[in-house]
Formats: sequence, structure tokens, C-alpha cells
Amino acid sequence: MKIVSYSIREDEMPALQNWQKEHPEVEIQIEKELLTPESAKKAQGADGVVVYQQKPYTRETLQALHDAGINKMSLRNVGTDNIDMDAAKELNFQITNVPVYSPNAIAEHAVWLMGRLLRREPEYSAKIAKRDLRWAPEIGQEMRMQTVGVIGTGHIGQVLIDIVRGFGAKVVCYDIYQNEKLKSEGLYVDSLDELYKQADIITLHVPSVKENIHMVNDDSISKMKDGVIIINASRGDLIDTDALIRGLDSGKIKAAGLDVYEKEVGVFNENWEGKQFPDARLENLLNRKNVIVTPHTAFYTETAVKNMIEIAHNSNVQLINGETPKNLVNLG
Amino acid sequence: MKIVSYSIREDEMPALQNWQKEHPEVEIQIEKELLTPESAKKAQGADGVVVYQQKPYTRETLQALHDAGINKMSLRNVGTDNIDMDAAKELNFQITNVPVYSPNAIAEHAVWLMGRLLRREPEYSAKIAKRDLRWAPEIGQEMRMQTVGVIGTGHIGQVLIDIVRGFGAKVVCYDIYQNEKLKSEGLYVDSLDELYKQADIITLHVPSVKENIHMVNDDSISKMKDGVIIINASRGDLIDTDALIRGLDSGKIKAAGLDVYEKEVGVFNENWEGKQFPDARLENLLNRKNVIVTPHTAFYTETAVKNMIEIAHNSNVQLINGETPKNLVNLG
Ligand SMILES: NC(=O)c1ccc[n+]([C@@H]2O[C@H](COP(=O)([O-])OP(=O)(O)OC[C@H]3O[C@@H](n4cnc5c(N)ncnc54)[C@H](O)[C@@H]3O)[C@@H](O)[C@H]2O)c1
Ligand SMILES: NC(=O)c1ccc[n+]([C@@H]2O[C@H](COP(=O)([O-])OP(=O)(O)OC[C@H]3O[C@@H](n4cnc5c(N)ncnc54)[C@H](O)[C@@H]3O)[C@@H](O)[C@H]2O)c1
Repeated sequence: MKIVSYSIREDEMPALQNWQKEHPEVEIQIEKELLTPESAKKAQGADGVVVYQQKPYTRETLQALHDAGINKMSLRNVGTDNIDMDAAKELNFQITNVPVYSPNAIAEHAVWLMGRLLRREPEYSAKIAKRDLRWAPEIGQEMRMQTVGVIGTGHIGQVLIDIVRGFGAKVVCYDIYQNEKLKSEGLYVDSLDELYKQADIITLHVPSVKENIHMVNDDSISKMKDGVIIINASRGDLIDTDALIRGLDSGKIKAAGLDVYEKEVGVFNENWEGKQFPDARLENLLNRKNVIVTPHTAFYTETAVKNMIEIAHNSNVQLINGETPKNLVNLG
Repeated sequence: MKIVSYSIREDEMPALQNWQKEHPEVEIQIEKELLTPESAKKAQGADGVVVYQQKPYTRETLQALHDAGINKMSLRNVGTDNIDMDAAKELNFQITNVPVYSPNAIAEHAVWLMGRLLRREPEYSAKIAKRDLRWAPEIGQEMRMQTVGVIGTGHIGQVLIDIVRGFGAKVVCYDIYQNEKLKSEGLYVDSLDELYKQADIITLHVPSVKENIHMVNDDSISKMKDGVIIINASRGDLIDTDALIRGLDSGKIKAAGLDVYEKEVGVFNENWEGKQFPDARLENLLNRKNVIVTPHTAFYTETAVKNMIEIAHNSNVQLINGETPKNLVNLG
């Protein structure tokens, strides 16, 4: 059995080598490049491919794979928006993704953003960098004194709740489907308005389905506490960035921690050093001492990457063996 | 009843005004300057003083207070090393301190240092500052995968244990006096050597009594795991700084988070911008991307400062009323 693994990064190698050792019956061909109509030809003679890229999986690419005799493709990530689904269906593709690789990676990152903002880390780091070692006046706040409003209590939200409760913080949460355990503990409020009223910190853990797009906007911000802290390690389009900037300007929003951004595609995960930075709004956010932007790195831990490699390769083996992995993508 | 409060900082004012409002029977005279033989004269006619400074409380200062009719002094902090105890005793002083103001402030800060190091925040911040928004190759680690070794399970260590367990991390701890609750949960190991063997992150929460000075040294470091992370938000002299630097140089120590430093007095809480930095070893540490130094700011939260103000003023009132506060300092 032979699998071609595309666009493998250096940091994925230890996990891949480890998986290879545990699966001597599978031959792995590593390709550093992305999957394109051109590179698809290298899969000739293989049984399946494992992939991970933001660039589209176009009809041409899928056709080239098909021509090379391949119709089993396993993504190492969750998102499938960049796949030409019509082509995939017509060409009889079977595709798997990795829906859950490490909720902890994201939940922990969201909490680290809270900590850095509560302790005014960017201000201290700037002072310390110029060797100003005075502690006043940037006084910090303690997590245990905060009421944390968690919007979305799925995989990630639940882990986050455990973490912030370990600090002794108060939790209020909201979800359109209430989880029994959290419900029995009385953590849910009945409406987002009630959550906005109570929360000192609001953290988003819902998907960006249509109803949720721009859920943080001028209207919802006006219902939040003065001096609220907003954390988004979910999806950029949950926040109306212009409204966020207005809230920061007015002081209504004390601080924000963002691992995602509305227009991040093509901007994050690129090196703009010495080049014209392409997004003035993002530049505005990056220059604020009460805003922390991380370029979609919440997921980027050794554990998550290991899980992405292992789950994707295991799923590809299942497809090749004619089994039906539970993470089979519905092509519509 | 009248109390003179010395060296009140801007960030202490809200808490002090609040205390004043709740104690209309007490007249507070605020002095921005430190307590010196000169400024002591301003306490003439008052019943007690509340103070907070790193500078010594010398015989001359205490004599000047005594001459002004004052022998009741309440510190807003814990440390009493800078008091001339012989003079205090001879002059019949009664002194209180604030032994516990917010263990959470320190414990949380120690955990924030862990998070920043696990996620390689200084490296990312440097990249992001020059608009390099690529996430690879600085892959992070998750807290839940760590074994955290807690040395000292007093007020601060216990809070820290609750926090890191909320992340799902494994805890091993060591204390010369074992706490019943933690003991029943099986968290203690029998020796520091055993803790060094198991811990991925070691965090210090013991006092700097004689036996503990330089407890982190070449010998103990050699017993730790390769790639250990060391956190010190306790006292600088617990670590032999030269040994720490050797451990960082060799790679034995992967990273360190330090809120305290052996020779911090006179260096921390000063502004060295544009001046000759006075400590080459500290400069060495400050320049490393895998070391985070914060200038003794772990305690510096709104909650802690509020408690310091309130406990000190309440204790001073107790002294003036002839009561015996439980935080009366033993003058030896
Ligand atoms: N920053 C990153 O690196 C990163 C990585 C992975 C996932 N994510 C994002 O995190 C988000 C959450 O992931 P998850 O794995 O916890 O998902 P999940 O499906 O397990 O949970 C989402 C929850 O949101 C709830 N929900 C949906 N719409 C809602 C609404 N309008 N109001 C309240 N609740 C609503 C759902 O009922 C569900 O409980 C997703 O958007 C995902 O894209 C980000
Ligand atoms: N960075 C800051 O801003 C800051 C602020 C406050 C306190 N601190 C420091 O934090 C430390 C802990 O404070 P705390 O309030 O938890 O103190 P604590 O007295 O409540 O606890 C200290 C614990 O250490 C144990 N201990 C003493 N020597 C030991 C040894 N050799 N090995 C193992 N255990 C030992 C004691 O039995 C006790 O349980 C103190 O050194 C204090 O000075 C730092």
C-alpha cells in the first residue's frame, strides 16, 4: 500500500516518521510541494494521498489525481471550503478530514491571550525591551476575579470552561444546544444579551455559519460591559472588525485577543517583512498595545500536529482498505 | 483618629479612597514621599503610619517617628528585612505587615509565564513585530501534556496546583511539610530528586530561608529532565543564576520564566532607558528569546493592591485601638 503525503512541513516530520515506524506495511512518499495539477502526477501508482493547503483543490487538480489513478484523499485539517465539490463528486472521490485534533490547543491559546491582556503584557514587554523595569502604573488583573462569558460550548468551549474554572473564575455560557453536564451545573444563561450583561471577558467558540457572521457588531458591543475584553480564536468573520475598532477607540472594549481575522486568507502565514503590508485595518489592530493578534497559531502545537498527521494517514489507510471512516466528508 | 499613609502611588488611590469612604471616623493624610527622618515629621499629631518601601527603615527614621509621637507602623507588604529591629524594639514600636494579600496574583503570573514559554510567545512577538506572520516553525506545546513540579505547597503553591490541574496537566509536588488534602490525592513525591526526574516544568514556591538558597544549582539541574522549563516567581536567590545560564547555554534547560532575580534590588523597579544597564548577567537573560524576565510584577494586581491597602490600614486602626492584630510582626 502506498500513500503520497503532500506539503509536509519540517515540524510534521517527527510525527510522520513515528507513524511510518508503526505502519511498516505502508509506503509513504513525501512531497514538500502543494497538491497542484502538476504535482498530482507524482502520485501515479499510489493508492491514496494525504494533503493540507489553503490553496484550492480545483477541478484540474482533482482530474490530474484521477488520471493518476487516485480518488482517495485525506485532509490533515478540518476545512473543506477550498475543494471543488462538484468535481470531487463527479470523479468519485472519497475524502476525509480531521474534525477534532486538539480542542485543548485552541482553548489554551484563548486563555493565554486572556492572561497576557489581563496582565498588560504588551505594555510591559515594550517597557522591558527598552530596559524600563518599573512596574507601575500598568497594574494587572486576576483571572479569578473575572466573569468569563463563553459563547459556544462544543469541544473547545468545554475545555476552556474547565481551564478558567481552575483559576477560580466565574463562567457564564451560551449555546443554541445546551450540554447536559454544564446545564446541570447551572452555567448557561438564556440569551446572548444576558451573557453580554454579565461577562468581563467574552470568548467565541462557535462556527462561522451564516447566523453567526458578525455576531460581534455595534449593537452587541453596546450591550456588553464597559471595559469588556473580547477573545476570538474561532473564525474571523464572527467579528465585524470595524465595529471592534470603534469599540476599542471609544474605550468600551478594553482589550482584544485575536487569533483569527476576517480577511486573514493571504495575509496570515505570509512574511511581510520589508514589503508593503496589505491590510490597513489589521495594521491598525497590530499597532495597539491593548490588542494581541496571533496569526492563526492557536492550533499549532506538537500534540495537534501529531494528531493531524496520524488521523489523516489512518483515515487514508481505511479508505484504501475499503472501510468507511467516520470522518468521511459529505460531498453534498 | 489620624493615620499618615506614606509613598502612596497613583494605582493605590482608588483602593485607599474606597477604604476612606468605609471608615469616615479615620482621617487619612496622604504623603507621596517615602518615610525618611525628614518626612517622618509630617506625622506629628497622628496616631499611626502606614508605609511601603524597599529603602531601609533606619534608626534615625524610627527615632524621628518616635519624636513625632508615633510608634504604630503598618507595612503594606510582607517583607521586614529593611527594618532596624533593634531600634524598633528599643523605641517600643508595634509593627504589622501583610503576610498574605493575594496568592492568586503570584500563582496566576507563574502560570502565564509557563503559557508564554510553552507557546514560544517571545519568538512569535518578535516575528509579528516585523510583520512576519508565518506560523512555522515555532511550534508550541500544550499545558495538558506537561508534568508540573511544584516545589512548596503553601498559599501560592496550592493555588497554582488548582490552576494547572484545570488545564489537565499532571502535578507532582514536594514540601517539607505535607498538606493533608494534597497528600490524600497522592500528589507528593518523597524527594526533590524524584520531582526533578519527573517534571517537565519546575516552579518554585518556597521562601528563601538559608537551606533553600541556590536550591537550583549545577547539581540539581543535572538531575532534571533534558529540556526542563524553570519558573521562579518566589525569590531570586533560590536560583544560582550562573548555573541557570550554563543550563540554558547547554540546552539542558529549554526555557525559564523569572519574576525575581538574585540581584534585583536597585535594578528592578528602576528605569534604565538611555542609561548604562547595571547588570551584565541580567542583560544576558533579558536578551534570550527562551527566557522571560518580569520585574517582580507577579504581585501587582488590582486585587492584591486593594488587599495591601485595606489590610494595612485595618491593622493600623487595630493597633491604635489597643488591639493585637494577628499580623503583628515579632521584633525578635
Ligand atoms: N483558531 C484555530 O486555530 C481554530 C482551530 C480549530 C477550530 N477553530 C474554530 O473553533 C470553533 C469551535 O470549534 P469546536 O471544535 O469547539 O466546534 P463544535 O462544533 O464542537 O462546537 C461549536 C458549538 O457552537 C454552538 N453554536 C453554533 N452556533 C451558535 C450560536 N449562534 N450561538 C451559540 N452557540 C452556537 C454549537 O451548538 C456547538 O456546541 C469553530 O468555529 C472552529 O472553526 C479554530
Ligand atoms: N513574585 C512575587 O511578587 C511574590 C509575592 C509574594 C510572595 N512571593 C514569594 O513566594 C514564596 C511562597 O509564598 P507563600 O505565600 O506560598 O508561602 P507559604 O509560607 O504559604 O508557603 C511556603 C511553603 O514552602 C515550604 N518549604 C519551605 N522550605 C522548603 C523546602 N526546602 N522544600 C520544600 N518546601 C519548602 C513550606 O513548608 C511552605 O509550605 C515566598 O518565598 C514569597 O516570598 C513572591
